[in-house]
Amino acid sequence: MVDRSAQYDAIIIGGGPAGLTAGIYTSRARLSSLLIERGLIGGQIVNAGRLDNYPGFPEGISGTELGELMHKQATKYGLGTVVAEVTSLKSRGKQKLVETTEGSFIARAVIIAGGCHRQKLGVPGEEEFMGKGISYCATCDGALFKGLPVAVVGGGNAAITEALHLARFASKVTVVHRRDQLRAVSILQEKAFSEPKIDFRWDSVVEQVEGRDLVNRIKLRNVKTGEESTLDISGVFVSIGLLPNTEYLKGFLPLDKTGAIITNSNMETEVAGVFAAGDICLNSPRQVVTACGDGAAAAIQATKNFT
Amino acid sequence: MVDRSAQYDAIIIGGGPAGLTAGIYTSRARLSSLLIERGLIGGQIVNAGRLDNYPGFPEGISGTELGELMHKQATKYGLGTVVAEVTSLKSRGKQKLVETTEGSFIARAVIIAGGCHRQKLGVPGEEEFMGKGISYCATCDGALFKGLPVAVVGGGNAAITEALHLARFASKVTVVHRRDQLRAVSILQEKAFSEPKIDFRWDSVVEQVEGRDLVNRIKLRNVKTGEESTLDISGVFVSIGLLPNTEYLKGFLPLDKTGAIITNSNMETEVAGVFAAGDICLNSPRQVVTACGDGAAAAIQATKNFT
Repeated sequence: MVDRSAQYDAIIIGGGPAGLTAGIYTSRARLSSLLIERGLIGGQIVNAGRLDNYPGFPEGISGTELGELMHKQATKYGLGTVVAEVTSLKSRGKQKLVETTEGSFIARAVIIAGGCHRQKLGVPGEEEFMGKGISYCATCDGALFKGLPVAVVGGGNAAITEALHLARFASKVTVVHRRDQLRAVSILQEKAFSEPKIDFRWDSVVEQVEGRDLVNRIKLRNVKTGEESTLDISGVFVSIGLLPNTEYLKGFLPLDKTGAIITNSNMETEVAGVFAAGDICLNSPRQVVTACGDGAAAAIQATKNFT
Repeated sequence: MVDRSAQYDAIIIGGGPAGLTAGIYTSRARLSSLLIERGLIGGQIVNAGRLDNYPGFPEGISGTELGELMHKQATKYGLGTVVAEVTSLKSRGKQKLVETTEGSFIARAVIIAGGCHRQKLGVPGEEEFMGKGISYCATCDGALFKGLPVAVVGGGNAAITEALHLARFASKVTVVHRRDQLRAVSILQEKAFSEPKIDFRWDSVVEQVEGRDLVNRIKLRNVKTGEESTLDISGVFVSIGLLPNTEYLKGFLPLDKTGAIITNSNMETEVAGVFAAGDICLNSPRQVVTACGDGAAAAIQATKNFT
């Protein structure tokens, strides 16, 4: 289905839930459609373990499996897929030129659904225990830690929101923050300080994640005193930032300071014919089903340009 | 799970995809949550036959089945359900009072996901022959017209999906559309144009529905030429649009002229603590997956008020 010399109606950048849903919709609308994914089909959900909150799967479904089902569905209606990394996006008259590591492609409409990457701790044990106690999403995984002690790493709005969310499930939530005060807005700080289940390790960074089959401890270091300590926990929620995959878009599209794409409610960017969907968008709730909703909305809007 | 005297954290009005997804999210966030549905769980998708574009089901899934799966998922996390029609929504201090045909309920947050109902033709004979040849649901009533000629009124996705469904039963399906081309997506148009049982009356509107005990004829008028004609049919399936189920909200919430609820991008209405999601919202793409995305976003926003 992939023809490098051909011009497509629609090119979709990113093979996560937003991009795959966009592909289902553009293909069913009979737009010749190409999806470009640099890694695994499914995007970030491949790392998510079991998803319990995607509607329609009451027993949960693995992210990998859900990605495969969506890809099968889109392919059935004619979506082509190429594995490549996008290196630039340019306007060429009314067309868009998408340059990748596997050649260049041209389309009338481009839907950017390239998602985010998680800012990682970058410490020993983090990779090893991913999905085994290390999580980047309290909404996804919080319920797994009912009655257990957990840590949240970070001090911003997202981290404190996650800590408050986790306090509903966990026996105790320790917020580990590298500074001596939170960056989160006051109202969140007040709530966190008045929640008896939440306590704080200030001026502290994670040095190592330890465990056997599952995480059971983290090593901390106080950045002011240099003192080392340990914390016995069953889960570590890392919330030190999500970074949109938009390096190649700087100068082409308006981005916010974190690199997120600014769209209107129809998922249109400031560049005609260029749409965005999913976690890569400013203010995205960053859920699988909201990403899918965005992908459908972007594709419907893109399709209007062809009718 | 339903306690009429109790106060809930969140009440969700409507048991379609938007409401069920909201229920999955509020329940997983440990908000005590009640869903109020006046008819069948699943909402409009119960009438939709097979859904081919909900991501994750490459072979399609019946609307009834998808609704049941979502309901099972939400119930698993603690969502309560009551079958009742909401008659009013009021603020009572920081609480909301939801009055229904089965009593009153109180909640801190209300998510309105009550969907839409089918627009009627508004012509003589329509009320008289309702259920006697006039139908608003091909999936429900199509099999009653085996071997008989029927008309479908409308030209959008819903109308053409209904026409294709009816072609399995009826001897002939005439699509009556007020324009000279369809609004339905290309894949549906192609199927309809290649289906020998389906033909079209373009630029035409229904003026009157006639019959004796049952419908046997409709009068048509060509909107360009003014010419009148008749069509001998046994069934008329009306699919000309959707109207938001917001009668009880007039004066409480800002609505657009069609009755759709106006929200910001976080699905918040102008009334604090009241959110809306799905087809009932202004500019909704009215897809199952966009409704689900809305439901999740509304629930996440509602949950923030509790943290």
